[in-house]
Amino acid sequence: MPGLRWMRDYRREWLRGDLFAGLTVGVMLIPQGMAYAMIAGLPPIFGLYSSTVPLLVYALFGTSRHLAVGPVALISLLVNTGVGALAGGDPAVFLAMAILLAMMVGVLQMSMGLLRLGFLVNFLSHPVISGFTTGAALIIGFSQFKHLAGIPLPSTQQLHVLLGALFSQVQQIQGVTLALGVGAIAFILAGRRIDPRLPGPLLAVVAGIAAVHFFSLNDRGVNIIGQIPSGLPRPGIPFFSESLHNLPGGIWGVVQHLAPIALTISLISFMESYAVARAVQRKHRNYEVDANKELIALGAANIAGSFFQAHPTTGGFSRTAVNEQAGAQSGLAAIISAALIALTLLFLTPLFYNLPQAVLAAIILVAVYGLIDLKEVRYLYHNDRRDLVLLAATFLVTVTLGVEAGILAGVALSIADLVYRSSRPHYAVLGAYGGKGIYRNVQRFPEAIEPPNTLILRPDGQWFFANASFWQQAIRENVAARPGTRVVVLDAATISAIDSTGLHSLQDVWEELQRDGIALRLSGLIGPVRDKLEHSGFFDKLGRDHVFMTLQEAVAGRHLSEAAGSGAVRTASRSGHSGLVSPRS
Amino acid sequence: MPGLRWMRDYRREWLRGDLFAGLTVGVMLIPQGMAYAMIAGLPPIFGLYSSTVPLLVYALFGTSRHLAVGPVALISLLVNTGVGALAGGDPAVFLAMAILLAMMVGVLQMSMGLLRLGFLVNFLSHPVISGFTTGAALIIGFSQFKHLAGIPLPSTQQLHVLLGALFSQVQQIQGVTLALGVGAIAFILAGRRIDPRLPGPLLAVVAGIAAVHFFSLNDRGVNIIGQIPSGLPRPGIPFFSESLHNLPGGIWGVVQHLAPIALTISLISFMESYAVARAVQRKHRNYEVDANKELIALGAANIAGSFFQAHPTTGGFSRTAVNEQAGAQSGLAAIISAALIALTLLFLTPLFYNLPQAVLAAIILVAVYGLIDLKEVRYLYHNDRRDLVLLAATFLVTVTLGVEAGILAGVALSIADLVYRSSRPHYAVLGAYGGKGIYRNVQRFPEAIEPPNTLILRPDGQWFFANASFWQQAIRENVAARPGTRVVVLDAATISAIDSTGLHSLQDVWEELQRDGIALRLSGLIGPVRDKLEHSGFFDKLGRDHVFMTLQEAVAGRHLSEAAGSGAVRTASRSGHSGLVSPRS
Repeated sequence: MPGLRWMRDYRREWLRGDLFAGLTVGVMLIPQGMAYAMIAGLPPIFGLYSSTVPLLVYALFGTSRHLAVGPVALISLLVNTGVGALAGGDPAVFLAMAILLAMMVGVLQMSMGLLRLGFLVNFLSHPVISGFTTGAALIIGFSQFKHLAGIPLPSTQQLHVLLGALFSQVQQIQGVTLALGVGAIAFILAGRRIDPRLPGPLLAVVAGIAAVHFFSLNDRGVNIIGQIPSGLPRPGIPFFSESLHNLPGGIWGVVQHLAPIALTISLISFMESYAVARAVQRKHRNYEVDANKELIALGAANIAGSFFQAHPTTGGFSRTAVNEQAGAQSGLAAIISAALIALTLLFLTPLFYNLPQAVLAAIILVAVYGLIDLKEVRYLYHNDRRDLVLLAATFLVTVTLGVEAGILAGVALSIADLVYRSSRPHYAVLGAYGGKGIYRNVQRFPEAIEPPNTLILRPDGQWFFANASFWQQAIRENVAARPGTRVVVLDAATISAIDSTGLHSLQDVWEELQRDGIALRLSGLIGPVRDKLEHSGFFDKLGRDHVFMTLQEAVAGRHLSEAAGSGAVRTASRSGHSGLVSPRS
Repeated sequence: MPGLRWMRDYRREWLRGDLFAGLTVGVMLIPQGMAYAMIAGLPPIFGLYSSTVPLLVYALFGTSRHLAVGPVALISLLVNTGVGALAGGDPAVFLAMAILLAMMVGVLQMSMGLLRLGFLVNFLSHPVISGFTTGAALIIGFSQFKHLAGIPLPSTQQLHVLLGALFSQVQQIQGVTLALGVGAIAFILAGRRIDPRLPGPLLAVVAGIAAVHFFSLNDRGVNIIGQIPSGLPRPGIPFFSESLHNLPGGIWGVVQHLAPIALTISLISFMESYAVARAVQRKHRNYEVDANKELIALGAANIAGSFFQAHPTTGGFSRTAVNEQAGAQSGLAAIISAALIALTLLFLTPLFYNLPQAVLAAIILVAVYGLIDLKEVRYLYHNDRRDLVLLAATFLVTVTLGVEAGILAGVALSIADLVYRSSRPHYAVLGAYGGKGIYRNVQRFPEAIEPPNTLILRPDGQWFFANASFWQQAIRENVAARPGTRVVVLDAATISAIDSTGLHSLQDVWEELQRDGIALRLSGLIGPVRDKLEHSGFFDKLGRDHVFMTLQEAVAGRHLSEAAGSGAVRTASRSGHSGLVSPRS
């Protein structure tokens, strides 16, 4: 249990930082927790419930000492749209489903961690994450106009539906509510300007409550949060919730329907959390963040949380950054944050009676604005147009078909692009450059000269099923374009791997060349490829004197004494095999 | 139109070969066509119809001069199982659907050719094709025991169902039929032993007809083909077939239901045909086989065929091989084959009245036995266990869930494996070997010595979203394992590509190293990667003096005068960009 490690290693000088950071994050969590519960479609108090038990459990199991776990905007949006489609408008069912979802997410994450599936997160590429986050930020942002301006809006994941409703009902804006909301935004932004360490959102909450109280804004149509029950969350087992057992299809029907959204949340929340934990860990280095252990810790936090009325939680970006900057040194900071929330739940909930929902909406808008990633768009425009298309496609699917579809489309497109690119790799025809045994791409260096009757081809990438025929064709075409070719040299250092289809096609190439009386020579093969060629018997067919250590030797057709004779020649010392082939490394 | 080319270039000395080959293939086609129609679940005559128009059209449009188009076993099996599930037992509907399917396959293939999607065929890797073909051969083979031994068998793609039915009804074997079938197999195999050029199947057909005639085997329970209508196929438009328009859902409903099987057949038949066309073309070289033009030609053959009662056809393996061996030189051979079939249809059909179905089953069994690919299993066992797993999985899904599911599973597994392998690539830590600027993997060459305070890492493969964090982690771990490291040298020649996620992570690596006071040097970058690093501004951050042409220079930290100064330095002369970076090629 990683939590025991920081407890055992605890040093007294850490206490100051942990205390200050824990209190700062706790103060952030009060308004954020309530606001994100609102995004999730739940009463604000559940955001506070979600900010107690999960924090304590993560502090014990998590490998990061800085990660601030709790409700986050993106996951709350996923909860809202995922559960909203199934709950059929019944608030009790909605709540029970959100809590059951936390348990399911926890079980999935823990299983993935135990099965060591943390690597899956790699398949969410940078442009996919960026397009998806920007799309989700817009949906969350615009959906808050319901609270910010009092416009009735449908609960939807589709941006065009949201914008349509917004424009068609623009005359329903409640002036006082909007003024309060815009005022709160200005207040938070101004506070951030003055000193980034100011707890702007909390101050906006205090100011909002004061405004409602002194100007009786509640009578002027401003929606307030109203009565909040006080006390800690009641323990209970989400799986035995009565409101779910009474549904047609029973509890197992609900589990089945929630499964896809639970899987999506498991992956996305892990991805967000792991990325921020890693980013912060890099600055410290006195601990390591482990992907699979993180999955187990987040899973434990979600499972335990679900027994205390928490909806799905994960490590959040902004609070983690604040936690680290405020000087947190260990999981004690998170325990202090949770304690502050618990005290709030026990004694301070009556103070939030007059809190206007517009202020929570303002807090959300400021937070999600930071998620809109135009910098990445500009970067990709200049550096990688293919990835820009990927970003744009993910964004468009996200805002039109929804958040889950966006992620799925992005991952599917990434993999399709990987496969397509693998099927038509880059290669270069090389020529001698400067006469010192240096060879260069003749298309980039017109002064590089191809040796007489010799084709030197450098295939850039692996040789496998998706491109085996491409390589065959490339060699065939380049030989055909050079009548009189007697030797083909493959500068094979860049062949990073070869599979059985690749082995078959390399053999085909050799047979074809042999029929035309052309010799094939290989140079610079890396170890794993050398092993495969050795075991398949290809070296025996080709002749070991056609395999060279350097391109220079291959073009000359002569082995240096050093390479040909002595102990320099072996294929796979590790796996116990050994062959008489000039190796590269 | 490639057909015009061989007509224009036609030489008189080709005529002899074309005539002999055309007649040989035509003689093969008579029994094969009838047998494969039987596999498809159609009356034998339709196999002859499918052996006329498609051959003529392919001769005009095809880029191969040797490909023998017509009915093939595998595609017939796909037709049988695909249409059988939809036709509901009505033979007229079954027939109309099989012909409509030919039209749909043709339209799909032609569209794919026009859209230049021929590269898609690359994704059927060698082990997938092998596992799939072996599975299909077993299903076709065992299903023929219905005709070979007179055992009633269900029409199914599932091997265990087939074998179950076979064993449970083994007492229903009709001795005379089985004797005739086994005799025909022995006859064909013996003929092949004596002289491979003997038309064994045709001789077996003649002998079978004679046996039925002289011994009145028909009265002893041997099933014969019976009355075959004579005359050429009647023209008609498959889309307007009355029996399909009268179905619930109408013709569009049928088209929708046939679409998945049409797509499967389009791809598999193209794959089979293209593979054999390419294999034969390699021996000749006086023409080129073009994937996209082949798709168009096969599409045209199927569309035109469907207007003359043909079911889906493609280039077959065995007849193409015979065509080439018999001396075919041009498409004229195929035209002669088609003419022979047409003459048979006009005048010889009454001769087949007494042909026993067991003889056709024997011909099929001999043909599919050759498709069982145990050699590949042995090859993979020794050379590529991962690909063996792929083969086995494809085989198992094919024989349990069916032919289409098998192909799909194989392709999905290939891609998943590609993605998984890409996410954890190979790398090597290098050390100086022998002091002559040669560096080798220290794990393979324990005598290679890592330079003091320097980590030399060679990442084998591209640097992209699926492995960006793997590379970061690999560098981090290897630095951590070598306290006192001051310099990290990436031997980057093996990085075949980099995407935007890779660029971000390379930058992260650099920032991390810099924070620890460790220098990062790159050597041997290939052109396309150099371009990306240049345009992203990474070289400006890293410092151009940290980019080297050779590993030797990078380890020494010194540029050779040749590389640093003169005209040797540029990034992408083709794309008009230029930077002061030492290039590799």
